[in-house]
Amino acid sequence: MKLAMVDDKITSFEELDPVHFDRGIYFGDGVYEVLRSYRGKIFALEEHLQRFAGSLAAIRITGIDVGVIRQRVERAFLAAGFANAKIYFHVTRGSEPRSHTWKPDLKPNFFLTVSELVDNPEEKAKGIAVCTHPDERWKRCDIKSLNLLPNILAKQAAAEKGFSEAILVDDAGFITEGAGSAFFAIVKRALQTAPLSANILPSITRQFVTKTAKNTGLAIEERCLTPQQAATADELFLAVTTKDIVPVVRFDDATIGDGRPGPCTKALIAEFQKFTV
Amino acid sequence: MKLAMVDDKITSFEELDPVHFDRGIYFGDGVYEVLRSYRGKIFALEEHLQRFAGSLAAIRITGIDVGVIRQRVERAFLAAGFANAKIYFHVTRGSEPRSHTWKPDLKPNFFLTVSELVDNPEEKAKGIAVCTHPDERWKRCDIKSLNLLPNILAKQAAAEKGFSEAILVDDAGFITEGAGSAFFAIVKRALQTAPLSANILPSITRQFVTKTAKNTGLAIEERCLTPQQAATADELFLAVTTKDIVPVVRFDDATIGDGRPGPCTKALIAEFQKFTV
Repeated sequence: MKLAMVDDKITSFEELDPVHFDRGIYFGDGVYEVLRSYRGKIFALEEHLQRFAGSLAAIRITGIDVGVIRQRVERAFLAAGFANAKIYFHVTRGSEPRSHTWKPDLKPNFFLTVSELVDNPEEKAKGIAVCTHPDERWKRCDIKSLNLLPNILAKQAAAEKGFSEAILVDDAGFITEGAGSAFFAIVKRALQTAPLSANILPSITRQFVTKTAKNTGLAIEERCLTPQQAATADELFLAVTTKDIVPVVRFDDATIGDGRPGPCTKALIAEFQKFTV
Repeated sequence: MKLAMVDDKITSFEELDPVHFDRGIYFGDGVYEVLRSYRGKIFALEEHLQRFAGSLAAIRITGIDVGVIRQRVERAFLAAGFANAKIYFHVTRGSEPRSHTWKPDLKPNFFLTVSELVDNPEEKAKGIAVCTHPDERWKRCDIKSLNLLPNILAKQAAAEKGFSEAILVDDAGFITEGAGSAFFAIVKRALQTAPLSANILPSITRQFVTKTAKNTGLAIEERCLTPQQAATADELFLAVTTKDIVPVVRFDDATIGDGRPGPCTKALIAEFQKFTV
């Protein structure tokens, strides 16, 4: 008799919630998004949905109507009733007995959570410390997939050393991005960040940071930075959906600027807020 | 109110099976093993458990007693009652609301399935066709983790072109291994396979193939092969737990040998069976 075991309990396949057979858990065979709202309004929903559609297509999950996803996100957000909410959702290819190749008619699984997002004004006011970590991820980090083991291992290692984020460095010695964020430097009033590639997530917040930079009169230079260049930049910051812009004041052992958020970063933070009203 | 949504149904966190919050699905934060039995006896259980302990340690999942895992595997195998069984199990770091860093006291989740393994004598008798595919995996493929999206995409792409396995080729142009198997060539009575590294799973079947090769008088050469070298080898085969040795008779467009399993591979298959009694 075909059987399953959950912890120490033997059971049948039929008795289990199909999520136990989710290809998301067997293979990380799914894609996800994280959104936030500011004061009752979801930020950049269309941009996130567009990226999500791209992720689905990249791993060939079909049969998803993004319009339906939009409705679900909006319905769950309203039902939760948080002015500042964090919304996570993923779609996996579906549930079936474990097999590398998939059944063509598999029904994708959708899962979403909404929780309250409590902003951390101290991080924005004082800045955070980050450390470098080898980029051990796969070669398609432009896809927002559920294969995130190297990301969490990097972030955990950073946290255990007292750093808020791990900045990933590839084999060639260049910074790609943060384990869960985009990474930016400011050098002589130019915003510097790695060009988008297969190794970098096309960050939605990055799109808004770029607009923000233009509005505050910064030049924009897409270039790959080494850790040495980052450590000696005038200013550094991260961009991440849940926190938008977070100043970085320590990079490994180096203090950035005078150890406090710099003037350009502060101007970007102020300017970014205009997009959130 | 914090809430979750499964497909189109809004629910509370509390109402859901904790598996919905499994770090295995959020991040692929877990490790697994696949075992088989031959005629009522689990093959190489200790070797698999030893590798599993190594995988757990590599991603720092603690609190797992491998002796307990052994008991569960044996108990489930007996309960299922298949002479030839396929046993899959994974351990994830545990269930908690999504967060990159993990709670130190998280209880790992264990999941196992047993199903009947039906051997495919035709594959062994006639051999299979394989094709090359770019190796897009992460940099720690020596860990048997749940981050398998590049593997399944490669295997699916191969299957859709009529091939039974994808042979992964790294950026330097060398074969690492199959998407779900170890890969071997025979050239002038020498068994050739890539040396173990961070890019290659330490296959249990490989250990037995090596012993088998010694017993059949083959030399063993650990070397990285190019697709061109593989295509012109005297013989090729895969090694995988569920099927042990499978002859490869076509490699991309190239016919291997005379298009039928070669004499060394046949000798290896026969010799391997001695380990399974």
